[in-house]
Amino acid sequence: MAGIKRRKISVIGAGFTGATTALMAAQKELGDVVLVDIPDLENPTKGKALDMLEASPVQGFDANITGTSDYADTADSDIVVITAGIARKPGMSRDDLVSTNAKIMKSVTQQIVKYSPESIIIVLTNPVDAMTYTVFKESGFPKNRVIGQSGVLDTARFRTFVAQELNLSVKDVTGFVLGGHGDDMVPLVRYSYAGGIPLETLIPKDRLDAIVERTRKGGGEIVNLLGNGSAYYAPAASLVEMIEAILKDQRRVLPTIVYLEGEYGFSDLYLGVPTVIGGNGLEKIIELDLLEEEKQALSKSAESVRSVMKALP
Amino acid sequence: MAGIKRRKISVIGAGFTGATTALMAAQKELGDVVLVDIPDLENPTKGKALDMLEASPVQGFDANITGTSDYADTADSDIVVITAGIARKPGMSRDDLVSTNAKIMKSVTQQIVKYSPESIIIVLTNPVDAMTYTVFKESGFPKNRVIGQSGVLDTARFRTFVAQELNLSVKDVTGFVLGGHGDDMVPLVRYSYAGGIPLETLIPKDRLDAIVERTRKGGGEIVNLLGNGSAYYAPAASLVEMIEAILKDQRRVLPTIVYLEGEYGFSDLYLGVPTVIGGNGLEKIIELDLLEEEKQALSKSAESVRSVMKALP
Amino acid sequence: MAGIKRRKISVIGAGFTGATTALMAAQKELGDVVLVDIPDLENPTKGKALDMLEASPVQGFDANITGTSDYADTADSDIVVITAGIARKPGMSRDDLVSTNAKIMKSVTQQIVKYSPESIIIVLTNPVDAMTYTVFKESGFPKNRVIGQSGVLDTARFRTFVAQELNLSVKDVTGFVLGGHGDDMVPLVRYSYAGGIPLETLIPKDRLDAIVERTRKGGGEIVNLLGNGSAYYAPAASLVEMIEAILKDQRRVLPTIVYLEGEYGFSDLYLGVPTVIGGNGLEKIIELDLLEEEKQALSKSAESVRSVMKALP
Amino acid sequence: MAGIKRRKISVIGAGFTGATTALMAAQKELGDVVLVDIPDLENPTKGKALDMLEASPVQGFDANITGTSDYADTADSDIVVITAGIARKPGMSRDDLVSTNAKIMKSVTQQIVKYSPESIIIVLTNPVDAMTYTVFKESGFPKNRVIGQSGVLDTARFRTFVAQELNLSVKDVTGFVLGGHGDDMVPLVRYSYAGGIPLETLIPKDRLDAIVERTRKGGGEIVNLLGNGSAYYAPAASLVEMIEAILKDQRRVLPTIVYLEGEYGFSDLYLGVPTVIGGNGLEKIIELDLLEEEKQALSKSAESVRSVMKALP
Repeated sequence: MAGIKRRKISVIGAGFTGATTALMAAQKELGDVVLVDIPDLENPTKGKALDMLEASPVQGFDANITGTSDYADTADSDIVVITAGIARKPGMSRDDLVSTNAKIMKSVTQQIVKYSPESIIIVLTNPVDAMTYTVFKESGFPKNRVIGQSGVLDTARFRTFVAQELNLSVKDVTGFVLGGHGDDMVPLVRYSYAGGIPLETLIPKDRLDAIVERTRKGGGEIVNLLGNGSAYYAPAASLVEMIEAILKDQRRVLPTIVYLEGEYGFSDLYLGVPTVIGGNGLEKIIELDLLEEEKQALSKSAESVRSVMKALP
Repeated sequence: MAGIKRRKISVIGAGFTGATTALMAAQKELGDVVLVDIPDLENPTKGKALDMLEASPVQGFDANITGTSDYADTADSDIVVITAGIARKPGMSRDDLVSTNAKIMKSVTQQIVKYSPESIIIVLTNPVDAMTYTVFKESGFPKNRVIGQSGVLDTARFRTFVAQELNLSVKDVTGFVLGGHGDDMVPLVRYSYAGGIPLETLIPKDRLDAIVERTRKGGGEIVNLLGNGSAYYAPAASLVEMIEAILKDQRRVLPTIVYLEGEYGFSDLYLGVPTVIGGNGLEKIIELDLLEEEKQALSKSAESVRSVMKALP
Repeated sequence: MAGIKRRKISVIGAGFTGATTALMAAQKELGDVVLVDIPDLENPTKGKALDMLEASPVQGFDANITGTSDYADTADSDIVVITAGIARKPGMSRDDLVSTNAKIMKSVTQQIVKYSPESIIIVLTNPVDAMTYTVFKESGFPKNRVIGQSGVLDTARFRTFVAQELNLSVKDVTGFVLGGHGDDMVPLVRYSYAGGIPLETLIPKDRLDAIVERTRKGGGEIVNLLGNGSAYYAPAASLVEMIEAILKDQRRVLPTIVYLEGEYGFSDLYLGVPTVIGGNGLEKIIELDLLEEEKQALSKSAESVRSVMKALP
Repeated sequence: MAGIKRRKISVIGAGFTGATTALMAAQKELGDVVLVDIPDLENPTKGKALDMLEASPVQGFDANITGTSDYADTADSDIVVITAGIARKPGMSRDDLVSTNAKIMKSVTQQIVKYSPESIIIVLTNPVDAMTYTVFKESGFPKNRVIGQSGVLDTARFRTFVAQELNLSVKDVTGFVLGGHGDDMVPLVRYSYAGGIPLETLIPKDRLDAIVERTRKGGGEIVNLLGNGSAYYAPAASLVEMIEAILKDQRRVLPTIVYLEGEYGFSDLYLGVPTVIGGNGLEKIIELDLLEEEKQALSKSAESVRSVMKALP
């Protein structure tokens, strides 16, 4: 009597992003959710999980949501999302940030490998390209089972700004981005549309440039507004889109951070490129012919990632 | 060329509950959402709204979500939800809490009346029975347009605990509660079921009593776990269920806090009773024959509310 | 590289009910759907499947839907739904109907056992109690993996009529039914509620009796209105609720037709009783204390099923 | 006590497309639905509506669905969808088809104008360009309130075929079509993408040509497979996307059939072009720079529509 079992999703790091990811995954009934944080935060983690669970009869979803500090509770997860890590604080050097979060990644990864050796890992922790690389190396998992999130979020922001500019439904606006997260991201405006119509024909160049620039600084815009903390709604939604693509084997075309072995001219590097995401995690890397300026921008972005990686312990 | 306009929901108070309410209302495409907080918090409020909006292309909802400290932006709302107010702090007397929040209610209500004179108001701020009364009196609105939330949340918690106890879907468990929020709530276990089967036949009395007691203290359980702050996921979901019932004119049977004029033997009092909620807000109060012990418990609950109301300024 | 595979649902019989079941399962992204009918109807079956598939980009669901007459295409289904069979025609004896459909059940079951030996089978074909029994015996499957549908549909009709009578949301009305489908069904009105309130306190007895009677004849009411053919929207929705409960391991409390081995005093009989439906199909039969008159009505219903079973070949 | 009222959608013609449109609109809780057909079909129309309504408790939607032959029941509809009309039968000349359906359009339109003078009308009946024109003229409505459906369906088919070809999610494939429905449609492959990547770089030209050709004949493919009748699932989904865009004021970018007054060089003609659809129906026509060959194809398509219109009575 084998029967059908619910999928299982573990979210490491029960801060706002982790918690919102748990909520959104549960709302879609993608599976049971285990929210994990350090022992010192075990009670708040349990509290958030219970509060979400108590929303389930009203929102009409069946998903067990539990909070824990014990990785044994994550055993046999189908997907593990890593949102754990520290944020850069005033006075902290970038290298310190990288070094600290890399240590966290290693520690978390060891637990994941121990308890969910067949899982697919999605990394959100910043600097995400380097952190995903760290998890990949530490896990020993094949590259299809370790991917990072940044492009879904970046394009979501881009799409939001374009939809506002044109006063159109967000459903009909698409965006496209390559490279690392943040200032070095490489938006491919020529592959971005409203209702299939290239944005360049719909929005004046200066306005479009401003939208691209605002997208690049999209994380910082939220940080500045909040005053304390960073974005979590859109990051969580982006993670859940990737989770859903995997758990429903949807073969979505999504920009994700994956391990390159020659694609786009890079090797032994995690970088944001267009990919097909399905039941195996990374199903395929889509290679595009880039314009010379795009190639250069992507190289710059790759260099930036490599520079960050030098601080890896 | 009149055309069809989106519904408009304003949420006063952009803390966790207010923000989560905005998110969940937007996810369901119930209308555009205006999130309001005080001028000092204008930027964080804008930040939360923008972060949510940036989730919309990924989650696939069309809803304008804005943050503001200017009530003019709430003009012509169909529904206004009040989550504003302070929480009780260590050392603060209950009367101080009541007095402070009542002043906030009055101030907020004046703005609502000014900008959305035809709106329906839903109050969440604690102590919710007294605060809903305050809003009712200050607004001058008819009683169908001022209602309070507590019973949807209380029954959601009860349903969660029962579903766990019986290892059944939350979809098939119902609960029923009368009276005020908190320790004085009056759960009607005889009107609570799993798959239509009375819980009393499915769960031993001592376990069921423990579940009732846990429900009564459900808010405190979350507060204790979180260590800092109180529940927001399930409260927000409960508010959104009421918003949806109104905006879709669903005529849901929900336990809400409404103005009594003789029903259940009480007058000039806001108290939790079974109601029909639809396009007019409160459509109907459902009167039940209560057992003697239930009548007594409800009286005690009513007295408790009246006692709180004595501290109203 | 095992990866996650979509669930697979095969629907045998591509008439209106089968086709609508396929659509509703796909809309919920419960899995890929294979719609099967006889070789003579292969093209229409393919046409319906393709038409549905062409709705998927617009409705936003990812599900492969295929039409076929080759059972090899159903291989490794998680769930197989049987809607195949003939309807009773004027002049046809009931025994002829039973005999013909039982032969169809046997033939279909052999194919299911051959290609999907681990599947869970849900039977809709009428007379459904006897047909589910036939499939059970022919399949050699354990009883948890062969169940029949009638109670979800019967209660759906009951709930609809009550919601209309009381002018309330269908979401808040529940119903409860035991026994066989049709005239012999045993509605337990005392376990039926609106917002948790027993219907007997809300609806006058004569009106409630009329609703029960209308429910009993609910299938005939649609047949008479359509003039040609029978109901398919609500039957399909009912099947999909069972499919969803299994594929999401929801442990729903649903009235289904299951194999009794002493429960309610019956053995070696398929009859409608309250059950828990989850990842193993039938998870549990819920036994209730019945009133004497309910026992008698259930016995009558059981006799009626046994009488039909005498015509089994 | 004005209160909030549900939106109201009337669907004229209760055949498979009309009925499926009613179901899909109700599933999304877009409003109450009135399904209308001729007096001779009143009972089957009532039967379909009742069967759908009986699915509502199970599918969890609140929408009143009624069947009628009396247009008085459609009074004050927000949207009226016209699916009524005959299909071309063997031996029937195209002019006879046009003439017969135009008469039906006029008769239906008079009823709509009488009972729902503020409604927005969406036409599906074929030949749809000419029929929408007929409804426009007969109604006297402004052009924003009379639109026709064909492009959403055509692109849905195109997207389905492309998703299959590339083994990708339908969610990430877009299509673009101009002109009339059927053989003369003008697919703009250069504005069609998978994950934002132009299809021309992903699919060899001969395969892409075959997909375009299959799209053109997409309606016929279903007709041939079904053997009796034509497609209804995807057409209904397409109508409901337009209904939703209007009732939620989404400002979707959709290809629809609208009245041209100089746009694309045509006047006093209904033709398929990219539009913005929102709360006013047609919000805007999007004008694109076309290539010379596209202009010619569109001219040919327009001529074809004008030729059909010559048969208008």
